[in-house]
Amino acid sequence: MRDVSIIGIGSTPVGEHWDQSLRHLAYNAVASALRDANIERADALYVGNMLSGEISGQAHLGALIADFAGLRGIEAIKVEAACASAAAAFRQAYIGVASGLQDVVIALGVEKMTDDVGSKLTAGLASAADADYESVHGITFVALNALIMQRYMYEYKVRREDFAGFAINAHANGAGNPNAMFQRPITREAFTHSGMVADPIGLLDASPMADGAAAVILCPTEQAREFTANAIRIKASAAATDSLSLHDRRDPLWLQAAEDSAQRAYRQAGVGPEAIDFFELHDAFTIMSALSLEASGFAERGKGAWLARDGEITPEGKIPITTRGGLKARGHPVGATGLYQIIEAVQQLRGEAGPNQVTNAQLGMTQNIGGSGATIVTHIFERV
Amino acid sequence: MRDVSIIGIGSTPVGEHWDQSLRHLAYNAVASALRDANIERADALYVGNMLSGEISGQAHLGALIADFAGLRGIEAIKVEAACASAAAAFRQAYIGVASGLQDVVIALGVEKMTDDVGSKLTAGLASAADADYESVHGITFVALNALIMQRYMYEYKVRREDFAGFAINAHANGAGNPNAMFQRPITREAFTHSGMVADPIGLLDASPMADGAAAVILCPTEQAREFTANAIRIKASAAATDSLSLHDRRDPLWLQAAEDSAQRAYRQAGVGPEAIDFFELHDAFTIMSALSLEASGFAERGKGAWLARDGEITPEGKIPITTRGGLKARGHPVGATGLYQIIEAVQQLRGEAGPNQVTNAQLGMTQNIGGSGATIVTHIFERV
Repeated sequence: MRDVSIIGIGSTPVGEHWDQSLRHLAYNAVASALRDANIERADALYVGNMLSGEISGQAHLGALIADFAGLRGIEAIKVEAACASAAAAFRQAYIGVASGLQDVVIALGVEKMTDDVGSKLTAGLASAADADYESVHGITFVALNALIMQRYMYEYKVRREDFAGFAINAHANGAGNPNAMFQRPITREAFTHSGMVADPIGLLDASPMADGAAAVILCPTEQAREFTANAIRIKASAAATDSLSLHDRRDPLWLQAAEDSAQRAYRQAGVGPEAIDFFELHDAFTIMSALSLEASGFAERGKGAWLARDGEITPEGKIPITTRGGLKARGHPVGATGLYQIIEAVQQLRGEAGPNQVTNAQLGMTQNIGGSGATIVTHIFERV
Repeated sequence: MRDVSIIGIGSTPVGEHWDQSLRHLAYNAVASALRDANIERADALYVGNMLSGEISGQAHLGALIADFAGLRGIEAIKVEAACASAAAAFRQAYIGVASGLQDVVIALGVEKMTDDVGSKLTAGLASAADADYESVHGITFVALNALIMQRYMYEYKVRREDFAGFAINAHANGAGNPNAMFQRPITREAFTHSGMVADPIGLLDASPMADGAAAVILCPTEQAREFTANAIRIKASAAATDSLSLHDRRDPLWLQAAEDSAQRAYRQAGVGPEAIDFFELHDAFTIMSALSLEASGFAERGKGAWLARDGEITPEGKIPITTRGGLKARGHPVGATGLYQIIEAVQQLRGEAGPNQVTNAQLGMTQNIGGSGATIVTHIFERV
């Protein structure tokens, strides 16, 4: 099994790209990543995407984007695992290079959500949940997360206000990220008084839907120096699943797949959570940040929100999270998000995070979540 | 890189399963493959599927099916490459085992087409073509293939009747396959007088849409003997792409991705087409059989249909194809088809093909095609 590194990154700004089609967004990210790696060819392309079939009437993105990006003929497929699609695609690229079967591989995440004609978006997002037992009742994705948050507040005696720090930190960090959808800080008052979406989830607990594309180039670590001086090593890669439906879980307040994939990643990397310098977690809703921190070993059960309350998640805190805005402020183009997280980790480790730079960042972790915790993909990256 | 073998196979009959949901079909195939391999656990699940989001409102099949099959927690994703989704999922399973990162892996293909409410099926299938340049004009998938067939007949002076042998052979072979959707032979007259679907494609040129699920268990060849005495070795695995849109191809009558993936497979296997004992090709339409035979080196350009006319594709012919009915008679549950092909190859190599057994089958090839030739995945299997 070969050691694997990242030699190029590229992404579009996250936002509403009314003037660009899905393939143009994808092309921009791929071309930019190839330029960054200083190469023109690749052996394979793995595309993470969730909703192109439903929203744009376009399946078969692997071949489509390979061709449109000037790479006609190369092996290319789409990987889907709901909102964890991009990190899942990245993991397949990692496995491809590790196997020795592929040398230079592109992992791309792309989502074009503004193509939505006929309001299929809410139904499309709900397809990440269990169609026969959850979404059939009309429950939306935000409503599912609201059920979890409600229960969390009841069980652990936490107030809605205690989650404010997650959103405030994300928006403060997004202000320093030129690719972020929202580049304005928010106040505690704005959080408290933001309109309710699904009680207790308010507008500022929730990440925005958006268009975006993010691409990363991988190759064997031993060849990385031929292309670039600032390759970032993939120190660990792990994925795990849980039941799609909340009611089937032993404990709806515990992300078992986060624990499983994080523990596997820690074992592969030979480190524990205390060694991680920053953590790009999946803050689709503030409650998910708390659960992700707990199941990944950064906080005790029921105490994830305290890290936000106590300022431990800011760039100067004990475990900086969402250092470039996270899903909340950078935006959440669902099938692309996992690769935005990975690119932001690479930027931190290269020392290219600008005003959001985490000092002396050596080890960074990313965690991409599909559904309400049914697919969770965790990676650890290292500056070498 | 590790050598990889198949140690278990399982599938549902192909047909209209009104009484079974997508997850039940998937479960039946997975459980049957696990029984066949005499194991109860796996490290990972790769699900090939094209249309569950559009037809059943259900994305996120990896985690869903892992859980429903009693494998909660294992790594699981969906792979999509239009009608080539199942072989693409199988290839990812192969790469996973070859890499050393995964030991026992399940490749599953599943498609539930009868869930179609609101007639989304034709639009869904058209999403395999280019949404912005082909399907936007209202062209359906069968119409695209009709354009190719029309041009083929004009260019090579072939009559529609010359394709009859493909359908007659497929139906004759389907009669011996208890899992086939159509188990009745057809006559040349029936072919000639079958109703026109999209000129020149008649009803008996076209494969039927259907429900179905097919699963295969892979593990390292060196561990295969621990599980079974009749493991089948994966001698070659290759995938290639082409443009989605027909008008962008240099030659619409040449499946470049079939040539590319077949040639790569021959190189990996160290053999040429003359060594292949049978070929499970992707006869979604009779024209595709001709093009696949040509681009894979079994016939000269423009002469693929002659093999059918001359009886060279029957079980006793030079290159037996669709030995258990093919897409035409076994049926075409799109995202599952590639794994039905692979299971049929394994049955031939194990000597379990019953009345369709190819004598002394040693090397078998499968080829799964997505779109009108944009993704093509070729595998070669060996009895050891």
